[in-house]
Amino acid sequence: MIDLRSDTVTKPDNVMREAAHNADVGDDVYGEDPTVNELEARAAEAVGMEAALYVPSGTMGNQIAARVHTDRGQEVLADRKSHVVKYELGGFAQHAELQVRMLETDRGVPSPDQIADEYVAEDLHRPGTGLVCLENTHNARGGLAIAPERIAAAADAARERDVPVHLDGARLFNAATALSVPAAELVDPVDSVMFCLSKGLGAPVGSMLAGSEEFVERARRTRKLLGGGMRQAGIIAAPGLQALENVSDLETDHEHARLLADGLAEISGFDVQEPETNIVLVDVAGTGLETETVLEELAERDVLATPFGPTTIRFCTHRDVSGDDIETALEAARNAFDAS
Amino acid sequence: MIDLRSDTVTKPDNVMREAAHNADVGDDVYGEDPTVNELEARAAEAVGMEAALYVPSGTMGNQIAARVHTDRGQEVLADRKSHVVKYELGGFAQHAELQVRMLETDRGVPSPDQIADEYVAEDLHRPGTGLVCLENTHNARGGLAIAPERIAAAADAARERDVPVHLDGARLFNAATALSVPAAELVDPVDSVMFCLSKGLGAPVGSMLAGSEEFVERARRTRKLLGGGMRQAGIIAAPGLQALENVSDLETDHEHARLLADGLAEISGFDVQEPETNIVLVDVAGTGLETETVLEELAERDVLATPFGPTTIRFCTHRDVSGDDIETALEAARNAFDAS
Amino acid sequence: MIDLRSDTVTKPDNVMREAAHNADVGDDVYGEDPTVNELEARAAEAVGMEAALYVPSGTMGNQIAARVHTDRGQEVLADRKSHVVKYELGGFAQHAELQVRMLETDRGVPSPDQIADEYVAEDLHRPGTGLVCLENTHNARGGLAIAPERIAAAADAARERDVPVHLDGARLFNAATALSVPAAELVDPVDSVMFCLSKGLGAPVGSMLAGSEEFVERARRTRKLLGGGMRQAGIIAAPGLQALENVSDLETDHEHARLLADGLAEISGFDVQEPETNIVLVDVAGTGLETETVLEELAERDVLATPFGPTTIRFCTHRDVSGDDIETALEAARNAFDAS
Amino acid sequence: MIDLRSDTVTKPDNVMREAAHNADVGDDVYGEDPTVNELEARAAEAVGMEAALYVPSGTMGNQIAARVHTDRGQEVLADRKSHVVKYELGGFAQHAELQVRMLETDRGVPSPDQIADEYVAEDLHRPGTGLVCLENTHNARGGLAIAPERIAAAADAARERDVPVHLDGARLFNAATALSVPAAELVDPVDSVMFCLSKGLGAPVGSMLAGSEEFVERARRTRKLLGGGMRQAGIIAAPGLQALENVSDLETDHEHARLLADGLAEISGFDVQEPETNIVLVDVAGTGLETETVLEELAERDVLATPFGPTTIRFCTHRDVSGDDIETALEAARNAFDAS
Repeated sequence: MIDLRSDTVTKPDNVMREAAHNADVGDDVYGEDPTVNELEARAAEAVGMEAALYVPSGTMGNQIAARVHTDRGQEVLADRKSHVVKYELGGFAQHAELQVRMLETDRGVPSPDQIADEYVAEDLHRPGTGLVCLENTHNARGGLAIAPERIAAAADAARERDVPVHLDGARLFNAATALSVPAAELVDPVDSVMFCLSKGLGAPVGSMLAGSEEFVERARRTRKLLGGGMRQAGIIAAPGLQALENVSDLETDHEHARLLADGLAEISGFDVQEPETNIVLVDVAGTGLETETVLEELAERDVLATPFGPTTIRFCTHRDVSGDDIETALEAARNAFDAS
Repeated sequence: MIDLRSDTVTKPDNVMREAAHNADVGDDVYGEDPTVNELEARAAEAVGMEAALYVPSGTMGNQIAARVHTDRGQEVLADRKSHVVKYELGGFAQHAELQVRMLETDRGVPSPDQIADEYVAEDLHRPGTGLVCLENTHNARGGLAIAPERIAAAADAARERDVPVHLDGARLFNAATALSVPAAELVDPVDSVMFCLSKGLGAPVGSMLAGSEEFVERARRTRKLLGGGMRQAGIIAAPGLQALENVSDLETDHEHARLLADGLAEISGFDVQEPETNIVLVDVAGTGLETETVLEELAERDVLATPFGPTTIRFCTHRDVSGDDIETALEAARNAFDAS
Repeated sequence: MIDLRSDTVTKPDNVMREAAHNADVGDDVYGEDPTVNELEARAAEAVGMEAALYVPSGTMGNQIAARVHTDRGQEVLADRKSHVVKYELGGFAQHAELQVRMLETDRGVPSPDQIADEYVAEDLHRPGTGLVCLENTHNARGGLAIAPERIAAAADAARERDVPVHLDGARLFNAATALSVPAAELVDPVDSVMFCLSKGLGAPVGSMLAGSEEFVERARRTRKLLGGGMRQAGIIAAPGLQALENVSDLETDHEHARLLADGLAEISGFDVQEPETNIVLVDVAGTGLETETVLEELAERDVLATPFGPTTIRFCTHRDVSGDDIETALEAARNAFDAS
Repeated sequence: MIDLRSDTVTKPDNVMREAAHNADVGDDVYGEDPTVNELEARAAEAVGMEAALYVPSGTMGNQIAARVHTDRGQEVLADRKSHVVKYELGGFAQHAELQVRMLETDRGVPSPDQIADEYVAEDLHRPGTGLVCLENTHNARGGLAIAPERIAAAADAARERDVPVHLDGARLFNAATALSVPAAELVDPVDSVMFCLSKGLGAPVGSMLAGSEEFVERARRTRKLLGGGMRQAGIIAAPGLQALENVSDLETDHEHARLLADGLAEISGFDVQEPETNIVLVDVAGTGLETETVLEELAERDVLATPFGPTTIRFCTHRDVSGDDIETALEAARNAFDAS
C-alpha cells in the first residue's frame, strides 16, 4: 500500500524507537520528566517562544490556546476552512463558549481590512472579538504556505485592537521549509503557536503549544482539565525530540508532492492545484466520477488518498513515502484512468 | 423628538394600559395566570402552531429554541447577518455550545444548495448540523420580507436531512403584511417560531415562542433555567393580547417607510435601499460624512435613528410615528443636508 | 381557596394596578425607562448598595450574580439546601461552569471554619473557590432569619480569601423585619444581593440585583445574554415601586405564620417547626400519612400548601391571606385530622 | 530517594521499554493501530465489558464517561471526597454542565438509601439525576477497597431509577487484589469503568475506559473533542499491555503498605489508618507538627510522601519500592521523630 491519506500515518523509525526505549523519564504531571522538559525547552527555542507545552494532539493544543486567550462569550475570527472550524468538533463553542466568525479569505488568511471590518468591540448586544486564529500551512486550502508578511499583517491588525493571535501550525515546519524562512520568523508576530511532532516530522504522538511563560503556565492547567496530563511521557517525548531533527527532510516531501502533482495533472479530467508543500488537491469533476469512485479505483491499485469534497481528493506526501512510491502511485493512477 | 431608532420604542397606548390594569392574573410559574394562558393560546393560533410560550424578550425566545432543538456540540446554519449571530452575545455558543456556520446568503436566506453544501453529517471529527435558523423580516439586511416559498425551500432542504428549523420572526407580522400572506403560511414549513409583541405591535414587554406541544413543554423548562419564569405576568400579557389586534396597523408603518425612503432619496449623497417593510437603510457614504456625524445633525433637529455601520443608518417606522412626523423628519433632514 | 403554597401567589392590588396603568415608560434596553430607573435607584438605596438592576425573576438575579463574580471553572460554597442548589436547574454549572461545594450547615449558613476548611486555592488539579453564596431568609430550612453577625462572619471569612459573597435575599425584607434590623445592615457585609419584589412584597413580576456600579454594569450585559432585557418594563416596575412600600406589612405575615404554627401544633402527629418569618414547616410523619395524602385532605377543605419532602409540608403566609383566613385554614385542618 | 508520593511515579521497566521499541503501530485516529486495538480488546476482557478505549489519563476517562452518560444540566451523585469532585478541576461542570450533589458517605460509597433520598426526578425547577459516580479503591479515604456487594447495592439503587453508574477505578485492580475477587465482578453492576495502566500497574502513560460497544463508540468521539486522539499510540499501548500482566504483583504493594503502616504506627503522635491496599494515611496531629514540617523532615532523609490535609499525609507503595526501601523509609522516620 502507498498511503497518501495523511502525514499522520508516518511510523516512528528505529532511531525514534531507540529513543523511546532509552528515554530518561519521570512523572510529568509533577513536572519531573527530564525528556519532556527537554522537549518543551527545545520546542520553545525552535519557534522562538519563551516556553512550550507537550500535548497529546494538535486539537488539544488549539483548544487550550483558545480557552487561555479568551473570556467566555467572546468571538474568534478565523478562515471558514480552517481546521479549528471544520475538524475539531466545534470545540471553541464547547470548551470555551466562543462564537467563531467564519471568514471567506484569500489563501486562508484574513486581511487587515477583514479584521478591521469583522472586529467587534464588546457592547451590550455584541460579544467582543477575543481571538484571531490563523493556520499555516493551510490544510483545507491545499497545504498553502502563508508568507510571514501576511501573518504579520493579520497579527498587527489584531494587536492594534488588543486581540491576541493564535497560529495553528500543525504543519508549521512545512511552511517554513517552503518559504525558506525560520519557523521563528513565521511565529514572531503571534502570541501562541501549536505545531505537530506527529505529522511530517514523524513522531508517533504529540504536539507542542508554545507562547509566553505565563501563557504556558495557564495552558498547563487547562491541559489537566482536558485530561491531557500524562505521566512518564518521556517515552513518547523522546521520539518527539528526534522528530525535531527531521525538519530538513520536509523538502523531500515537497519535491514528492510536486512530482505527484505533475504526474496527476496528465490524467484526463484531473484538475490539480499546484502544491506549495506536501499536500496535493485534485478536483476530479472532469472525469465525470465522484470522489468515492476515484478513491476506490486507486485503492484497488494499492494507493490511498483522502476524500476532501464531492469531487475533491487530497494526497499527502510524507517521510514513509519514497520517490519510487510516488512513481508507482502515478503508474497506478494512469492504469486506472486515461491520460489526457 | 421623532424617534426612528427602532420599533421597540413604541409605548403602550391607553387600551393596553387599561388591559394591564384589569388583567385577571395568577402565578404563571404554576401555569395559573389566565391571561398568560389566553395569550399563549391566541399566539399559537395566530401562527398555526400547537402551542406557544410567553417570554420576556425575543433573544430569550431564540436562545431557548436553539437549546431545545439541539444537542451540545452541534452546528447551526444561519445567515451571517442574522440577529442571532450579531446581537445576542454569542448566546448559541454560550447557552447551547453550538458552533454557528455563518453563511453569506441571498436576502438573508440560505438556499437549498447552500444547506446541502454546508450541512455536515456527524462524524468523528465534525459536529453534525443540528439546526437551521432563519429570520423574517430580516433586520440587518433592511427589513426584507422573505417570501413563503423561500422559507419553504430552505426548510425542505433542512428536513430532508432531519435538521429542525427555527424562525426568528421578531417582525413576522411585518413580513406577513408586506407579502399579503397569513403569518401561519410563512411559519408552516418551520418547527418553531419566535415573534415579538413588543416591536411594531406595540406591547410594552414580551415575545412568543411557538411550536409543537412537546417543544413548548421543553421550552418552558429552559425558560426557567434562563430565569424567564415570571409570576403574575398577566399584567404584561394583557397588553400583549391587545398587541395581537394591532397587526392590521402595520401596513401604515410600511407606507410611512416608503414615504420616508422616497424623501431621503432626494438628499444628495444618501443611497436609500428600497424598503419592503418598516425599515429603511441609508448609506450616507456619498455625503462624505460618517454615520455618527449624520446622526448628530439629525438629533440636533429632533430626529433619532440608529447607526448600522460606518456609513449606514437604519430608520424604523412604528405606531408612535405618524405621517406628519415623517414629513417633519424629512424636513429636518433636508435642512441638515443638501437636496441632490 | 386559602392559598398557602407560596408568597409568590400574591396578586397586585389596586394601587399597583393603578401604578401600572399610569407608569411613565421608555425603552429600558436603551436605559430610557424612567420608572425602571427610579425603581433601580430606590432598590439600591433600600439595601445600601451603589446600584441595582431590575430582572424578571429571582433565579435570573442569582444566576447573573454567580456569572459576574466568577471565572469559568471555579467553585461555589453554598448550603446544600439553598435555593440556588435545589431549585435553579443546576444553573451555576449550566450558565457559569461552576462546581458547587454543597455544605451541611447550621441554619443554612456556612461557619467561618467551614469556609476556611472548604476553601480551595486554585492549583493544577483543583478549581479555586470563586464565590460564597448565602441565603436569607433561608427557604428550605423553614424561612430562617439569619442574624447579621452570622452573615458578617461568613462574609469576613470569604473576604480574607479574596472570595466575593452573593446573598440570595429573595425574602430579604422578611429577614430584616424578623430581626428588626435594616435590610442594608444585613447586606452590608456582602458584595451583591438579589431580592424579590414578587413574593411577600406583592409585586406581580420581578426582582432586584444590587451591588457596586461596576458589578451592575456587568450584570446588565449578562441579563441581555440570558434574555432578560425588557422594553417598556415600567409597566411592571411601577407596581414594583409600590411593593417597596409594603415592607412594613411583612410583620403581619409573620404574626399569621405564628398563629398558623400554634394551631397546627395542636394537631396529633404534626411536628411544627417554630416559624421565624412567614414560612411554617410541618413534619406530618407522626400522622402515619404521607405528604400527598395530607395535602389532598387539606385541598378538599380549600386549603393549599406545598410538598417539601416525603412527610414535610410548607405553609407560607402572605398579604393575600388574612388572620380570618388563617383561622379558617386551621378549622379545616382540625376537621381533617385529630387534635392531639 | 524513596518516593512514596504516588504510584503514578512508577517508571516503565525494561520489558515495557522493549515492548515500546518493538510495537506494531498504525494511526489510531483511523483505528489502525494494532497494538492499541489489542490493548482495548484485552482491557475490555479484563473487566468483562464489551469494549474499551485507550485514553491519555484517568481524568480524561472519567470526564468522557460523565459526558457520554448524561444530558447537559443533570445532576451527579458522588461522594464528596471522590477524585472526580476534588481533583479534576470541576470538569463535570466545565465539560458537561453537570451539578454534582456531593454526599457524605460511609467508606466513599453512597448507600441505597442515600441514592433514594438524593435522587431528583427532573421537573420544572430541578435538574434530574443523570449519573451515579463511584470510586474503587477510594483514594482520598485511604485506598479503601469497596466490596462488590456495596457497589452492587448502589448500582441497583441507581438502576431502579434509570440512572447509569460510572466507576472511577483508577486503582481497580488494587481493589480486586485486596478483596480477592475478579475485577470483572467488581465492575459487573456498573455501566462504565475507567482504570489506569499508569499507576500500580506501572505503564508510563494511559488509562482505559470500558463499557458497552455503543458507549465506547460515543466515548471515542468525545475523546476527539477533548483532544485525546493520538496517532501511533501503540508505542505507549505496548507497555500498557505489559502492565496488564502486572496485576498479580499488586499484592506485594499491599504487603509493603501494611509493613509501612505498622512501622509508622510506632511513631509517637502518628495516627495511622489501617491500609486496605497500597495507600497509608497518617494523621500527624499528635506530633504537634503540621503536614509540611513532617514532609520536610522526611524529605531531608530521602523519603517523599504527599500532603493530604493540614495534618494528614498519604504514603503510597508501588512496584518501584521494595521491602528494603520500606525498612529504610521507616528507619528514616524513626530518626526524624520519636517512637511512642
